[in-house]
Amino acid sequence: MISSKEAMKLILDELPIFSNEKINTLQSVGRILKEPIYAERDQPPFDRVTMDGIAVCFAALQKGVDQFTIANTQFAGDAQTTLKDDNYCIEIMTGAILPKNTNCIIPVEYIQIKEGIALVDKNYQPQKLQYIHQQGSDHQKHTEALKIGHKIEPIDISLILSCGMKQILVSSDPKICIISNGNELVAAGDPILPHQIRMSNGPAIMVMLEQQGFKNSQYIHLVDDKDIQKEVINNHLTSSDILILSGGVSMGQADFIPQVLQECGVKNIFHKVLQRPGKPMWFGIGPKKQLIFALPGNPVSTLTCCRHYVIQALQQAYGRNIFVNEYAQLQEEITFKANLTYFLPVKIINSENGILKAYPIETNTSGDFASLIGTDGYIELASEPSLFKKSESLKFYRWKMP
Amino acid sequence: MISSKEAMKLILDELPIFSNEKINTLQSVGRILKEPIYAERDQPPFDRVTMDGIAVCFAALQKGVDQFTIANTQFAGDAQTTLKDDNYCIEIMTGAILPKNTNCIIPVEYIQIKEGIALVDKNYQPQKLQYIHQQGSDHQKHTEALKIGHKIEPIDISLILSCGMKQILVSSDPKICIISNGNELVAAGDPILPHQIRMSNGPAIMVMLEQQGFKNSQYIHLVDDKDIQKEVINNHLTSSDILILSGGVSMGQADFIPQVLQECGVKNIFHKVLQRPGKPMWFGIGPKKQLIFALPGNPVSTLTCCRHYVIQALQQAYGRNIFVNEYAQLQEEITFKANLTYFLPVKIINSENGILKAYPIETNTSGDFASLIGTDGYIELASEPSLFKKSESLKFYRWKMP
Repeated sequence: MISSKEAMKLILDELPIFSNEKINTLQSVGRILKEPIYAERDQPPFDRVTMDGIAVCFAALQKGVDQFTIANTQFAGDAQTTLKDDNYCIEIMTGAILPKNTNCIIPVEYIQIKEGIALVDKNYQPQKLQYIHQQGSDHQKHTEALKIGHKIEPIDISLILSCGMKQILVSSDPKICIISNGNELVAAGDPILPHQIRMSNGPAIMVMLEQQGFKNSQYIHLVDDKDIQKEVINNHLTSSDILILSGGVSMGQADFIPQVLQECGVKNIFHKVLQRPGKPMWFGIGPKKQLIFALPGNPVSTLTCCRHYVIQALQQAYGRNIFVNEYAQLQEEITFKANLTYFLPVKIINSENGILKAYPIETNTSGDFASLIGTDGYIELASEPSLFKKSESLKFYRWKMP
Repeated sequence: MISSKEAMKLILDELPIFSNEKINTLQSVGRILKEPIYAERDQPPFDRVTMDGIAVCFAALQKGVDQFTIANTQFAGDAQTTLKDDNYCIEIMTGAILPKNTNCIIPVEYIQIKEGIALVDKNYQPQKLQYIHQQGSDHQKHTEALKIGHKIEPIDISLILSCGMKQILVSSDPKICIISNGNELVAAGDPILPHQIRMSNGPAIMVMLEQQGFKNSQYIHLVDDKDIQKEVINNHLTSSDILILSGGVSMGQADFIPQVLQECGVKNIFHKVLQRPGKPMWFGIGPKKQLIFALPGNPVSTLTCCRHYVIQALQQAYGRNIFVNEYAQLQEEITFKANLTYFLPVKIINSENGILKAYPIETNTSGDFASLIGTDGYIELASEPSLFKKSESLKFYRWKMP
């Protein structure tokens, strides 16, 4: 059986390159940028006034002039006007272009205006170029503002729009089909018999992907019938980029999935991983190089394997160029002797001294998903050593990958 | 002028209670739960087999029986069968209900089956109740699984569905209208003149809210014309729960917003806050108790005030019962003498020892939003003291509120 690290490597070796698409900038949060964004103009695009007040020529102030006749008023959005005489000033508003022949702004708080004349406060000490955000001082025209591979956040939207880009090139949303399996499963809302179980894995995988920005997915549920499974999987192999199955991958007599996948022309890359939860995990490659993940059906296993393998792989395939590694300090000693990587759910507290503290929440079994409620993610306990000390720092994975 | 803390308190004092709505569980990620979720049944709902193998009566093993005739096979989803003779066994699959009169599962790895008889490996040491996830051991029927005020994450969806809840009560999405102001602003994609600026605040506020789960918002842009502003704001005061304005709140002669809002019957609660960025911020209450935020128009101010005040207030009004405080250690000494709260953008690195390290990224001006790219949020530097030491731990706010 292979280790969790080897499993991840084998998946990453098979990553497809998703195609790109042009979308509205406003729809692009969470997507990965596939073209560099360049500054459309200098930023600021002109010498930009940053206070309401008057624009004057600094030389006049140096000569001792302390009252200026208002020549005209210039608002933000107005075309640039020109100061024709040093004894005059131009009333000016925040955001306006600096008038020609002026190089100093005196804020409105430090002047008094009477009969068209602005009087500068005796105690105010103006400085040349003060309250002027100079053209190009943030960045210059054609500067690369955002790189390919950048994951787009709301704060980036301002910048992209200010670069004049109404539409941008991002990686396309792959078509994902989620297929859960099992005769025992009954959807919420439907009548249920004592020996049956509520269906939850398919929907949970779908919303987990959605939260990560993968919104082009559907889920279907199949009973444990080889012929039906084969037909449906075959159909989705022609129409989907990614298949995620849950259930039907263990050793049971109704666990047809590995066999059905093979019969559908899916090449198995690995089956079973030295990990808890999720040991029976299966991974393969479809005839058109699709990624095919078959996750164990126990809810904790499904969620953990989905977060750990599926989402990391998709984000990588999506082209993200920064992955954030997180670490947290274990808050109780853990002994774990099995030769397995243990993904242990934790609550995280970011203490007032800036340290991330991980409080383990051991689940009753891998079916005990109620224990997951309130956990923030899981820490990774390597297969060796078997004793993990209090305050030891360990790799931490948020359920919601940052 | 009031402090940032006072401003926040004044806002929280005015929070409305959003109404509730029933929505599909699958649509509920990011929403706040407004009814408790109770376990529909015991979890597991029956003694659930956790390994593929055979189900036997443990007493028979104790008597030395080590081979069992297979009476029948029971799959997950099959109704419960009954073992009628201790010398027999029932072939059983993971997820099945434990057959009557059996209390031990022997995994398929430890048996050999020949001609309908299962032979238990000599060295295998079975235990009573092993590989049986006992009914109600995770939680019992009617246990409160999720509380009112819980923010719904993908891992919760499994639990909610397993409680049989196809639809759940959550707080409604308030209707938000975002209005940006300014003659100088031109939308991306449109021709632009040298003295004009790209419009970015309205869209950035909208996507920031969307990312937080507030999806029922629209944005419009207005020129600096009092009559138009008054008409549009009046219209939206009748149709919106929240108004967020950007620009037009400073001291300039075209900064009509405070006056227009007052003329529209909005009661001003505060204008100006001792903070950088965002000093001119304005807040008031509409005739129908709507929250009216008027944010300064400089992009860094807009984004910071939106994250700090608007989003925290809306999440609180949404009814979230857990707010996550985060702290990070400052990585360079900062001297800041102004009597203001300083919201300083930072990049965060979660170092391998589990410590969050904050690297300050000082913006050139509050118009310099290009510097924000790659920052994770901002730290709060109190108005006193004025020297913040390296390694000092400070409150940290992620752009994306967790």
